[in-house]
Amino acid sequence: MGSVMDTTLMLIIAAGIIAVVYGVITRASLMKASTGNERMNEIAGAIQEGAKAYLNKQYKTIAIVGVFVTVLLFLFFRNAIAPVGFVLGAVLSGIAGYVGMLVSVQANVRTTEASRQSLGAGLNIAFKAGAITGMLVAGLALLGLAVYYYVLTGPMGANERGVIDGLVSLSLGASLISVFARLGGGIFTKGADVGGDLVGKVEAGIPEDDPRNPATIADNVGDNVGDCAGMAADLFETYVVTIAATMVLGSIIFSGVGQLALYPMAIGAACIVTSIIGTYFVRLSKGSDNVMGALYKGLIVTGILSIAAIYGVTSYLLGMGEIAGTPFSGMDLFLCGVVGLIITGLIVMITEYYTGTKFRPVRSVAEASESGHGTNVIQGLAVSMEATAIPVLIIVFGIIATYSLGGLYGIAIAVTAMLGVAGMIVALDAFGPVTDNAGGIAEMAELPSEVRNTTDMLDAVGNTTKAVTKGYAIGSAGLGALVLFAAFYKDIEYFAAKAEPGTFFDGLGTLTFSLTDPYVIVGLFIGGLLPYLFGAWAMQSVGRAAGAIVEEVRRQFKADPGIMAGTSRPDYARAVDLLTGAAIKEMIKPSLLPILAPIVLFFVIQFIATAVTGDKVAGNAAALSALGAMLLGVIVTGLFVALSMTAGGGAWDNAKKYIEDGNHGGKGSEAHKASVTGDTVGDPYKDTAGPAVNPMIKITNIIALLLIAVLAH
Amino acid sequence: MGSVMDTTLMLIIAAGIIAVVYGVITRASLMKASTGNERMNEIAGAIQEGAKAYLNKQYKTIAIVGVFVTVLLFLFFRNAIAPVGFVLGAVLSGIAGYVGMLVSVQANVRTTEASRQSLGAGLNIAFKAGAITGMLVAGLALLGLAVYYYVLTGPMGANERGVIDGLVSLSLGASLISVFARLGGGIFTKGADVGGDLVGKVEAGIPEDDPRNPATIADNVGDNVGDCAGMAADLFETYVVTIAATMVLGSIIFSGVGQLALYPMAIGAACIVTSIIGTYFVRLSKGSDNVMGALYKGLIVTGILSIAAIYGVTSYLLGMGEIAGTPFSGMDLFLCGVVGLIITGLIVMITEYYTGTKFRPVRSVAEASESGHGTNVIQGLAVSMEATAIPVLIIVFGIIATYSLGGLYGIAIAVTAMLGVAGMIVALDAFGPVTDNAGGIAEMAELPSEVRNTTDMLDAVGNTTKAVTKGYAIGSAGLGALVLFAAFYKDIEYFAAKAEPGTFFDGLGTLTFSLTDPYVIVGLFIGGLLPYLFGAWAMQSVGRAAGAIVEEVRRQFKADPGIMAGTSRPDYARAVDLLTGAAIKEMIKPSLLPILAPIVLFFVIQFIATAVTGDKVAGNAAALSALGAMLLGVIVTGLFVALSMTAGGGAWDNAKKYIEDGNHGGKGSEAHKASVTGDTVGDPYKDTAGPAVNPMIKITNIIALLLIAVLAH
Repeated sequence: MGSVMDTTLMLIIAAGIIAVVYGVITRASLMKASTGNERMNEIAGAIQEGAKAYLNKQYKTIAIVGVFVTVLLFLFFRNAIAPVGFVLGAVLSGIAGYVGMLVSVQANVRTTEASRQSLGAGLNIAFKAGAITGMLVAGLALLGLAVYYYVLTGPMGANERGVIDGLVSLSLGASLISVFARLGGGIFTKGADVGGDLVGKVEAGIPEDDPRNPATIADNVGDNVGDCAGMAADLFETYVVTIAATMVLGSIIFSGVGQLALYPMAIGAACIVTSIIGTYFVRLSKGSDNVMGALYKGLIVTGILSIAAIYGVTSYLLGMGEIAGTPFSGMDLFLCGVVGLIITGLIVMITEYYTGTKFRPVRSVAEASESGHGTNVIQGLAVSMEATAIPVLIIVFGIIATYSLGGLYGIAIAVTAMLGVAGMIVALDAFGPVTDNAGGIAEMAELPSEVRNTTDMLDAVGNTTKAVTKGYAIGSAGLGALVLFAAFYKDIEYFAAKAEPGTFFDGLGTLTFSLTDPYVIVGLFIGGLLPYLFGAWAMQSVGRAAGAIVEEVRRQFKADPGIMAGTSRPDYARAVDLLTGAAIKEMIKPSLLPILAPIVLFFVIQFIATAVTGDKVAGNAAALSALGAMLLGVIVTGLFVALSMTAGGGAWDNAKKYIEDGNHGGKGSEAHKASVTGDTVGDPYKDTAGPAVNPMIKITNIIALLLIAVLAH
Repeated sequence: MGSVMDTTLMLIIAAGIIAVVYGVITRASLMKASTGNERMNEIAGAIQEGAKAYLNKQYKTIAIVGVFVTVLLFLFFRNAIAPVGFVLGAVLSGIAGYVGMLVSVQANVRTTEASRQSLGAGLNIAFKAGAITGMLVAGLALLGLAVYYYVLTGPMGANERGVIDGLVSLSLGASLISVFARLGGGIFTKGADVGGDLVGKVEAGIPEDDPRNPATIADNVGDNVGDCAGMAADLFETYVVTIAATMVLGSIIFSGVGQLALYPMAIGAACIVTSIIGTYFVRLSKGSDNVMGALYKGLIVTGILSIAAIYGVTSYLLGMGEIAGTPFSGMDLFLCGVVGLIITGLIVMITEYYTGTKFRPVRSVAEASESGHGTNVIQGLAVSMEATAIPVLIIVFGIIATYSLGGLYGIAIAVTAMLGVAGMIVALDAFGPVTDNAGGIAEMAELPSEVRNTTDMLDAVGNTTKAVTKGYAIGSAGLGALVLFAAFYKDIEYFAAKAEPGTFFDGLGTLTFSLTDPYVIVGLFIGGLLPYLFGAWAMQSVGRAAGAIVEEVRRQFKADPGIMAGTSRPDYARAVDLLTGAAIKEMIKPSLLPILAPIVLFFVIQFIATAVTGDKVAGNAAALSALGAMLLGVIVTGLFVALSMTAGGGAWDNAKKYIEDGNHGGKGSEAHKASVTGDTVGDPYKDTAGPAVNPMIKITNIIALLLIAVLAH
């Protein structure tokens, strides 16, 4: 058995390396493409410079928090396992985001240039860029997990608890980067977008990406640092956290069944290979302009191959029959994986329904725009709330089906399979900001309108794929968080069973987390509150950043009338600097909420309950019950807040696009103005607050897991 | 003991009668006031006619559903207890709403006329109208409970279970009317408001309540059927349900402790008297224009007297020492009541902070209006989400404090005390639509602008008191629903303990509703979904109704240019008819959601879980666990959805008022236009979807309680 395990671990590491090699090779082929004329290069250079400057400053700020956390981890655990895991997770997540951004800012101008030839050529470049980011995210995440697992079990000689601590700390590193990057990037990109639109489109009456708008470079920088780097960090985190949580859960429940430790990573490895194969199927048939169809072809191929691959992995590692020491068979787990892939497919379909221009929801928002700004927003909010229903039912179906097949571990394997294809999904998403930038460069470089039309076609698809990815990310995050919660209470059971007299878990017995316990209700309420407060703060941050941009643009227009006349160039860099400062400053407060809330709740409840009952063990039990319920409260409202925000934002955006395509009066009509308002409202919804709820849910869970590990030490 | 009980019950019934007598006497004094000139009477007549026509049609529609439910109850329970209770609850709720509307439509024109004299005179009439509605709501609710309790325990000779069934059915009747009335009235009033504003203020550029707008009578009708009748039905329901649930809980947990059965009603009776006394303290000091201060004086007096009254009731009925057969003392319960009153005070304060023009939240929305429609809406949404935080923390404080004092029953007594002062709170709220109408009548009758200024001052206060009442209603509904949930699982324990072989509850054992049970998670998710779907549907209904009004008004303007010229009168009645039809039609689907969802969930999970486990008892346990968790899921997300919607709507409304007071450019500025958009978005938020979530949460819980009673039969 040992040699199968070793071989498997080597194969997993090999798959991670293949993904990185794929990235390097594809990047080389991408770099060969032409970057167009001098003006285009000048603009692209400004975007690159701004994006790098922002990310450097962002990572520097996060590094300060990171050093602090590393020291804390060392002080609490008194060994290298937790701090090293944390640093590794954080650094790899940072690399995935940074490299994704670098590829994206080099691909944008090449996509513009390729779009001068044909739609197919433009798609080819943009998708390549997306695929590089996608494979790097999945590959680095898998490498981090596998290599650290190898080091932990080998050279560092960690015991079972040490491995768990290491994996949880790795997750914490990824989560910490992710919540900061999602928020900081989201505030930057939407501050620029909202502010630029308000003062440019609405006040000055100039089109989007007009070179006279001083915020236009900042807007394009934002696409790269928010939609690309932020998203990459988010999915890196979801990947690491989900697979780590599955490994941890397997290790806690079935500590005797060694091969289960590698099984989740093996699924990830197999699906990286199928994702790479899938990328080669993304190609526009001659004469077709069905970009979405081309992308879906790749996704479907990946999905089908993944079913076969998961079957292969399961039968190789576990066999399809009963697995000794567990209540399920290999076949059961394989079916759980299939359910995970089915959930992915269903969520993709339903998100497209709610955010695509062909269907009722977006059209109803467009139609409501005819009676004004107010009705557009009302209908958009209604759609956003309605859009939570079916995804939640899908998740419920997934829970029941996989739990019936394989218990808690079955749920975990389904999410692992969902995340397995993350490389392909990220490829679809990271394609979006590249085409968005490509359109911006075409506009600013004053290229012929056909080029802009071509990039617009790509961009419209990018809007849908971005929404689809968000639905997928949130669905998997919701299920993944349930796995973390399961790891949390199984961990408590473990500690309580092994507690030595006088230690924290001594005498605790089994906690039921019963809804009949008022401390559980309290935890649910407080947990439910977090996404609301977090979302409120994130929205306000975007409002403040956008307000600052509005004032800066107004100031530039006033100071130099030559800008609007087109005779002098606006000071783009100043807008970028201003936003960089604003985004970094604004990301701190909301990010600290999910980190501090579980700790504060635990100690406050421990204090109150101990005082009320006069019993220390009862106080500890109440605090742990409230903490556990808080984790679920965050998941419940977080799922609804995130799903409604991302779907609603996508619907508003595409309702505007639908009107711009000539419906309900087209561009410049009153309905169009109303739809621009809806789009503005949707911006922080879908690109700042909504997606940032994802890592926020998980970081709350991870902090709780670490807290009990510290209490047990 | 028996004679104390009999005396107490008679005193409780007497308090209810006093409230009704107060209403009759105050109405007589109100009717003596002058109704002004002929034009004013004509307008007021049209509003009265529209409001009566709408409510008649609404109640007729609800009656059809009601007959159906009555028959079902008879078929399930095979006795008169449940159907009679249901009909009684429904009819009394209907009367409270209808009479409230009648008083309101008679007081509006009298308030206008009184406002020609002075602010104090206007306040006097408007508040009298509110107080009549308030005392009728509390009085009829208490009478219904006490008389039916008397009949059940006396003439009908019901046993303990029969009394429970009767009280739960009474609650169902009140809830059913409430959800329909809140939704129907809310859709009517906001359809008129949004539609009228869009086509009047925005398109035609005429002020609110301009007699040339064909929707203007409908708008004023809406205030009476939505904000008055709908709100009255809502608080009638909250009152009945809370006190009934407290009685039921007391009866289940402490079945031997007879005097606890009357204790909740006795608190209600005492507080009705203190509320009546409080109304006499609402008076403007000479030369002052601090209307809010005058209203608060009444509220504070009521609060302080209520503390004394609850002390008296507790010491008379239970004594302040240990209560035999329970783990708490009379003093503990008295303190729980005080906590309930403190929660009321804190929620009033925090709601005023989030919706008052003097504080940061409203001002931030007003400021954001300067950069456009989009930023106004973004900031409003952020405020709405943030506004959930402190109320939830207050509720959490209440849960911990009262549970520590008196367990589940302690929580129930706190909510009972909160609801005790409902008469006074409704008085503050019902004052709002009267002043709103009074302003409309002043405008339409083309009275001097000083009159409108006076009514506007009253109306601005009405906006705040309306928001405050909603915060109070939702806070108490959230806590009240927890009491219902407690009754639910205590009931299951009871049935399981007494189950005979072969019946449904046989072999069930104790359900833990543990968060580690996947069916509990499923229930939480599905329950959490209900307020989102319900809210989405309600918002869409308003959008559709408003759209129909926009088209009708446009049609009238086009068909007869004399309307805008002021030479011919628009066809007001047509707009009223159109909305009546739309509101009745639209209220059905969302109302059925909370009624059917618990039943469907139960049977679907029962079917699946039985199939998966192959064990009928396990299937039943899973279904009951999911159902219980659904009840909590509804409470958790419902609380956030309702709090955010009502606070956000209030903030948007008052941000507009703040700008109209001359800030940020005042009326007609771009900021003002943006603030009108926010106000429009806030309309269905705060007056349709948000408040309707209240009865929706409770009806879900009551249906679940009835379902298990039916299963046990």
